[in-house]
Amino acid sequence: MPFKLGRVAKEIGAELNGDPDLVINNLAPIEEASEGELSFIAGKKHRKLLEKTKASALIVYPGLKSDTCSLLILDDPQLGFARAMRLFYSPYPEVNPGVEKSAIIAEGINVPSDCYIGHNAVISSGVGIGNGVEIHAGAFVGENVKIGDGSRLYQNVTVCRDVMIGGQVVIYPNAVIGSEGFGYAREDNRHVKIPQIGTVIIEDYVEIGAGTTIDRATLGATVIGKGAIIDNLVQIAHNCRIGRGAILCAQVGLAGSTIVGENAILAGQVGVAGHLTVGNGAILQAQSGVASDIPDGSVQFGTPSREAYLAHKIEAILNKLPDYISRIKQLESKLKNNS
Amino acid sequence: MPFKLGRVAKEIGAELNGDPDLVINNLAPIEEASEGELSFIAGKKHRKLLEKTKASALIVYPGLKSDTCSLLILDDPQLGFARAMRLFYSPYPEVNPGVEKSAIIAEGINVPSDCYIGHNAVISSGVGIGNGVEIHAGAFVGENVKIGDGSRLYQNVTVCRDVMIGGQVVIYPNAVIGSEGFGYAREDNRHVKIPQIGTVIIEDYVEIGAGTTIDRATLGATVIGKGAIIDNLVQIAHNCRIGRGAILCAQVGLAGSTIVGENAILAGQVGVAGHLTVGNGAILQAQSGVASDIPDGSVQFGTPSREAYLAHKIEAILNKLPDYISRIKQLESKLKNNS
Amino acid sequence: MPFKLGRVAKEIGAELNGDPDLVINNLAPIEEASEGELSFIAGKKHRKLLEKTKASALIVYPGLKSDTCSLLILDDPQLGFARAMRLFYSPYPEVNPGVEKSAIIAEGINVPSDCYIGHNAVISSGVGIGNGVEIHAGAFVGENVKIGDGSRLYQNVTVCRDVMIGGQVVIYPNAVIGSEGFGYAREDNRHVKIPQIGTVIIEDYVEIGAGTTIDRATLGATVIGKGAIIDNLVQIAHNCRIGRGAILCAQVGLAGSTIVGENAILAGQVGVAGHLTVGNGAILQAQSGVASDIPDGSVQFGTPSREAYLAHKIEAILNKLPDYISRIKQLESKLKNNS
Repeated sequence: MPFKLGRVAKEIGAELNGDPDLVINNLAPIEEASEGELSFIAGKKHRKLLEKTKASALIVYPGLKSDTCSLLILDDPQLGFARAMRLFYSPYPEVNPGVEKSAIIAEGINVPSDCYIGHNAVISSGVGIGNGVEIHAGAFVGENVKIGDGSRLYQNVTVCRDVMIGGQVVIYPNAVIGSEGFGYAREDNRHVKIPQIGTVIIEDYVEIGAGTTIDRATLGATVIGKGAIIDNLVQIAHNCRIGRGAILCAQVGLAGSTIVGENAILAGQVGVAGHLTVGNGAILQAQSGVASDIPDGSVQFGTPSREAYLAHKIEAILNKLPDYISRIKQLESKLKNNS
Repeated sequence: MPFKLGRVAKEIGAELNGDPDLVINNLAPIEEASEGELSFIAGKKHRKLLEKTKASALIVYPGLKSDTCSLLILDDPQLGFARAMRLFYSPYPEVNPGVEKSAIIAEGINVPSDCYIGHNAVISSGVGIGNGVEIHAGAFVGENVKIGDGSRLYQNVTVCRDVMIGGQVVIYPNAVIGSEGFGYAREDNRHVKIPQIGTVIIEDYVEIGAGTTIDRATLGATVIGKGAIIDNLVQIAHNCRIGRGAILCAQVGLAGSTIVGENAILAGQVGVAGHLTVGNGAILQAQSGVASDIPDGSVQFGTPSREAYLAHKIEAILNKLPDYISRIKQLESKLKNNS
Repeated sequence: MPFKLGRVAKEIGAELNGDPDLVINNLAPIEEASEGELSFIAGKKHRKLLEKTKASALIVYPGLKSDTCSLLILDDPQLGFARAMRLFYSPYPEVNPGVEKSAIIAEGINVPSDCYIGHNAVISSGVGIGNGVEIHAGAFVGENVKIGDGSRLYQNVTVCRDVMIGGQVVIYPNAVIGSEGFGYAREDNRHVKIPQIGTVIIEDYVEIGAGTTIDRATLGATVIGKGAIIDNLVQIAHNCRIGRGAILCAQVGLAGSTIVGENAILAGQVGVAGHLTVGNGAILQAQSGVASDIPDGSVQFGTPSREAYLAHKIEAILNKLPDYISRIKQLESKLKNNS
């Protein structure tokens, strides 16, 4: 849907330097944008693109000027662009309500009329489905699962029995929620399965990426706190507790019973050992391996992880380590000569 | 099913300090346990919880006392709790036998009457199904796959053609067994696929986690040895051989033709390069990267991995590296002044 | 299909030392090969197997002799074996064309007669299907997806709306193409989804491993270049661009908007941060973590990654670091005594 530029400026909280009646039809990456399209310049690195772009309008940081483009000026152009994206487009693909004929729904399940149930989706007995829920093709929903209003389960997702899913939750394709945790005891020289009778509780507004696996608790519940966002191919083991608003990037792995604090950020491929606590607001940089509790607000890097300022200082020294070793040898030979 | 405490003590091999006729209805985490429930204290770290718990009975290590709880005393309370879990609960969710109407089963396949075949499961021609097998919703079983007695394939699992699955094997949701290995040759300046005509053999009592991928061999077989346990999102490439009882934690990755010894333990996110041997009973600590053969019983850490005692010694030194570098510089300036 | 050895020699470009009329029925690993079978010796490490093998013929490097086996001699026996594999076997399992009754195909879709559509596969409206395409059981193909001639989508694959798939592309089981990228803005103290309205373009001859996830672009397209090969459980975030012929090994993870050059090689578990460029022909060794742009042809290792020669030099020094620290202390005590 097209919007006038004045409206866009107002909606995204930007100062307008240009024609408020200019009609914007679309958003586009700055290299590909053409007439009637809006794009943005995130930082000084991309400043040069301002002269070349064919976009009709740009969201920019303060201090830029253009003879050809209308400008929407605000301190954080990336945030402005995100807001514009939400103005122009639906945050999730829109789906017409209805139940596909091939969907398999156990007897007695109430499917509100504004829901969508896709082809070959399987809804087991005892499942509770809120208003406006979408369960897409090939998804499996196990016995007694509860799904809150407005939640979306995409294609080929597996949600095992008894899992509790809040409202406005999104689970992307082929993710697995509530599989049995990795719990075994060693008896008679073999691994014996420990029953995993707990569950998973996913609070409101959580998003869970494609192919991600979240195991049910041995007892009690694995909990994903409100508004946490979890990327693709993440592994969350039994009995973990993820704080509200936490961010887990792709391929993060958490061992059993680990606690992640509110608004903590775990970058890509981070691993955390079991029974540890990552504090509120802590940041673990990419590929870090965590072997001890992380204090609130701590920024860490490395395997094993250290305070990031120290870890990066060490890394800088390592680059010169061959030189330092030569200097130790020189010292030794000088001392030999001196003595 | 409830049990009297005296019976529980006997079954888990614990000394009873309390009422043998006390009825236990359930097991619960110590913080959540209430009257009629049994919990445990794994180690001294959780000792304080003994005073606060509302559990009626606790499994504890020797030396603890309580005025309010009956105690079951044994050296390894965690093992005792695992045994109690197996006494009270079924190790796997129980399923009523039968074949769902929407299951697609090729002509001529014999499905024993005690099996369960779920909604939309696909069983291809030539498949052999043992007694008591469960194949859950949306699982795909390719041509000529053989599945031994009592094995369970959970939702949306893909098992490709010709794979051999032993008895009492468990494959968790969305795992992929027997996909084509990553084998290519470089010809005429492009990658050309090498046919992958081998298979996968999964021996008895193996467990394979959600989203894990195990590739078929180029020729011969990728083999997962008896009783090996494999966690979620693990990658096992073509022609690997995993020893009996080995443990592969989440997100481990093995390149092609790698051999893992019996009872070896690969912690989370470990990677092993191709054509290597990890010895029997070797332990690779989390995130280690293995670039050479690992001797039997060796404990290693790091990328590239080193003997763990050395790796951790080096890590301890690295914490002080900025200080050591200052000391080198001080030595240099002293020597300059001296000379 | 059997071939005479003379024909095999010609097809794989080897010099024959033996009987050209010998009939070869099969290829086999050298330890398992028996009469009528062809195997190979890749390098000196396996030279001893020459005396023990029961194979009738072997592909070997120059300089080896045998009294019992016919030999096919060429410089790169592994390449020769790959060629022989392609002579004897089909590069992909052969499938009879046809549409399974349980397949769900939207109205108006044209399925060429030489295609295979498997059980419970779902083909949404607006999908375009080329000649000879295979879409296997449980695969989901979203609205308006286009699939070029000869491409194969294996079991339980999810391809989301609007994705463009070229010709001769292979997508292995349970992979997810075109899921929503990990794009959120922070507003009012919570994460707000940024609409992901771009797509994924997969060029000709690309192969994508089992369980791999490739996210659609926020705007524009995530692009996988012609002939790139991607292993299992790889994560490719929104707006990445993978160059032609690039190799991404298992469990590699790329953050958003990262560019991988032509013929670059990313070994297992490598991670690359967002908005970076990995140059043409660059090689990132296993588990490397990339935090800055990588020049064309650079070979790097470590987290953060360094030029490999330097990284391995540092690793060699680290092995002796405890010794070097002792030497610093000795120098200090000598200097104290001297002064």
